[in-house]
Amino acid sequence: MPQFLNTADADFEARFAAFLTTKREDAPDVDAAVAAIIDDVRARGDAAVIELTERFDRLALTPDRLAFSDDEIAAECARVPDAEKAALEHAARRIRAYHARQMPDDAKWTDPDGATLGWRWTPVEAAGLYVPGGLASYPSSVLMNAIPARVAGVERLVVTVPTPDGTVNPLVLLAAKVAGVDTVFRVGGAQAIAALAYGTETVSPVDKIVGPGNAYVAAAKRRVFGKVGIDMIAGPSEILVIADADNDPDWIAVDLLSQAEHDESAQAILITPDADFGRAVVAAVEKRLETLERHAIAGPSWRDYGAVITVRDLDEAAELSNRVAPEHLELCVAEPEALAEKIRHAGAIFLGSWTPEAIGDYVGGPNHVLPTARSARFSSGLSVLDFMKRTTLARMSPAALNTIGPAAEILARSESLEAHGLSVRARLDRLNEEDA
Amino acid sequence: MPQFLNTADADFEARFAAFLTTKREDAPDVDAAVAAIIDDVRARGDAAVIELTERFDRLALTPDRLAFSDDEIAAECARVPDAEKAALEHAARRIRAYHARQMPDDAKWTDPDGATLGWRWTPVEAAGLYVPGGLASYPSSVLMNAIPARVAGVERLVVTVPTPDGTVNPLVLLAAKVAGVDTVFRVGGAQAIAALAYGTETVSPVDKIVGPGNAYVAAAKRRVFGKVGIDMIAGPSEILVIADADNDPDWIAVDLLSQAEHDESAQAILITPDADFGRAVVAAVEKRLETLERHAIAGPSWRDYGAVITVRDLDEAAELSNRVAPEHLELCVAEPEALAEKIRHAGAIFLGSWTPEAIGDYVGGPNHVLPTARSARFSSGLSVLDFMKRTTLARMSPAALNTIGPAAEILARSESLEAHGLSVRARLDRLNEEDA
Repeated sequence: MPQFLNTADADFEARFAAFLTTKREDAPDVDAAVAAIIDDVRARGDAAVIELTERFDRLALTPDRLAFSDDEIAAECARVPDAEKAALEHAARRIRAYHARQMPDDAKWTDPDGATLGWRWTPVEAAGLYVPGGLASYPSSVLMNAIPARVAGVERLVVTVPTPDGTVNPLVLLAAKVAGVDTVFRVGGAQAIAALAYGTETVSPVDKIVGPGNAYVAAAKRRVFGKVGIDMIAGPSEILVIADADNDPDWIAVDLLSQAEHDESAQAILITPDADFGRAVVAAVEKRLETLERHAIAGPSWRDYGAVITVRDLDEAAELSNRVAPEHLELCVAEPEALAEKIRHAGAIFLGSWTPEAIGDYVGGPNHVLPTARSARFSSGLSVLDFMKRTTLARMSPAALNTIGPAAEILARSESLEAHGLSVRARLDRLNEEDA
Repeated sequence: MPQFLNTADADFEARFAAFLTTKREDAPDVDAAVAAIIDDVRARGDAAVIELTERFDRLALTPDRLAFSDDEIAAECARVPDAEKAALEHAARRIRAYHARQMPDDAKWTDPDGATLGWRWTPVEAAGLYVPGGLASYPSSVLMNAIPARVAGVERLVVTVPTPDGTVNPLVLLAAKVAGVDTVFRVGGAQAIAALAYGTETVSPVDKIVGPGNAYVAAAKRRVFGKVGIDMIAGPSEILVIADADNDPDWIAVDLLSQAEHDESAQAILITPDADFGRAVVAAVEKRLETLERHAIAGPSWRDYGAVITVRDLDEAAELSNRVAPEHLELCVAEPEALAEKIRHAGAIFLGSWTPEAIGDYVGGPNHVLPTARSARFSSGLSVLDFMKRTTLARMSPAALNTIGPAAEILARSESLEAHGLSVRARLDRLNEEDA
């Protein structure tokens, strides 16, 4: 059974605090194995990648077969049913339209002292997107990672995806094509991350690596961080639903299960001001679990990590939600916008009962790569900005230097950085000579 | 002697490629020691912090003396000469004005399908700023880290700074006061990072940790990343100057030395279309080094890692600069704006000969916390955005769900995520019933 908590109970604070810090995932320590794989790929390039792919994916490759050919991609894409193809293209259009609005503005202005200041955004030149093989091979994730990169203006965008025993997910290749990916490599694991970060004879290195993966991929991303940029290391999925009694318990039940079915370590939480409604949702979850295909995943997730929290009012619901800082937050209440104003930490908010979280996973437009494990307190979902960087600009007129230079010189000397001060002083002396 | 390269030489490409990958810093492996310190602080809180401070800083503290009192801060600040105080306040005003322009906009719109979409930016609630003690204790860094946090709207902003043997830098305390820091703890090293990330009886945990530090601090930040947000791990400072022959060689020489004096591992590079000018700058550097206070640092930096590269023209200079992706880039040429258009990767650009880089370190306005070690290819300097996060918003009308829901359902089924599809289907069925 999920946990039942009630803010009116005397032991609520202790139980909620314990609930917040429950560890849901024990990442295996694969750091030494990953370090060896990265060193091997750095030292031997393609040869290492090919050997490791043979060992881990039981697939014999040659350098010219590391990437899918255009013909292979076309043949795989042709296998995708028309309805799925249309749905993928529909989703891509909506995701592209949303992310296009995220393009940041450059700025330039001259202040009263005569200093011209500003900044300019430029795209990362090359990005690599890791796509897991097997169970977690989600074409929607290809769209969510690749489209922001393309919108940002990334010139070269490559995908790596393992194809164990040669098994390919045609939808992944179609999604890569729809999103405008340049090259798809059939390589996975830490060897793929190493190839992306350091390059091989066949794989040109990239500047930024994004995308989810298993413990090996996560450890490899941590290791190459600094050499290249990486996105966040994603944890198991989470949903928090704040729902009043004016909801169909079955709708809320399937919403909770839609995250619980991802992973046994996923977490689904209901906060409601109505304890009876909470019990009705729990019953509806149990009923749905009887027939759900992935009941063996969703069931343990719900029973081990799920929770139903009864609150006095929606203000209290918002406070608790802020302490959870959930990845996904549904506000199934009469005035969701008003409640959203009280939310300070959440990856994505879904407003009103007609907005199931799953819409956001596929076709809503916003990104589905979102901060997990309470990291919405300090980080954001994937966006166009993750594929861009900002260069600051400053230009001093001689008059501006004359006005603000002395303060720089004083501070430089106070930090015992003489050359810093001299670089200003040399110019100020010239101005004084010219004045004299 | 610094390296002399010329793009006209046959071996240029090989030498430049080797130059680019020269390793300037060997970080000692302190990971095990840092892990033990973090575990100790997590387990024993204040008691561990106090013991470690006694061991590493030879300073006996009690829980109520972990933070500076208001009286102590006032007494230290009173020791700062008026000229330095005025310079610090001048700098703070300019930094605040620049960063205020970085405040991002929220967005909300309704698309033709009836989906209301948008995002909202909110500040991180609590941030901690690490300030090194000793040689690298720079009050300017306090301003550069603390002011963006305050502009972002961070509610609680704390500083930790080691005070070995009780030695305090009054300017650091004044900078903290000017920047609006709430509390300053006299704690340093990995124990400070652990206290900020996990909290103790006296130190409330924060959500984001920023600021430079030694190998222990850097390793501790890497370890707590995920539990809290961190900024980039900064490497040694770098400057690249593109200068034509219409410059005073001495100005360029002190500009190069202003970064070389930071650290023996710092790097200063001159790119010029005029080989004679390059030689004149080298001579000017040698002359300045004869009298420079920090010649024992700047000299080795210049000789071991410095370079003078002669190019055919400024286009070639921009290309090479983009391959370096420097932290600081000075464009001392007749038309710096035109050249800046060709720069794709740089932390900060200083335009024209009247804009020495040191202006940017103190009073220009832009941040001086910038990406090093070629990471300007994929990352940006510190900004207000580092202390904020974005929540995406989506609201479907019933009509919008009817239009875009079926695509979500199809994609969910294609990924074998049945509950995702059911959460959409349950609602679509209701719409169909209502229509019927």
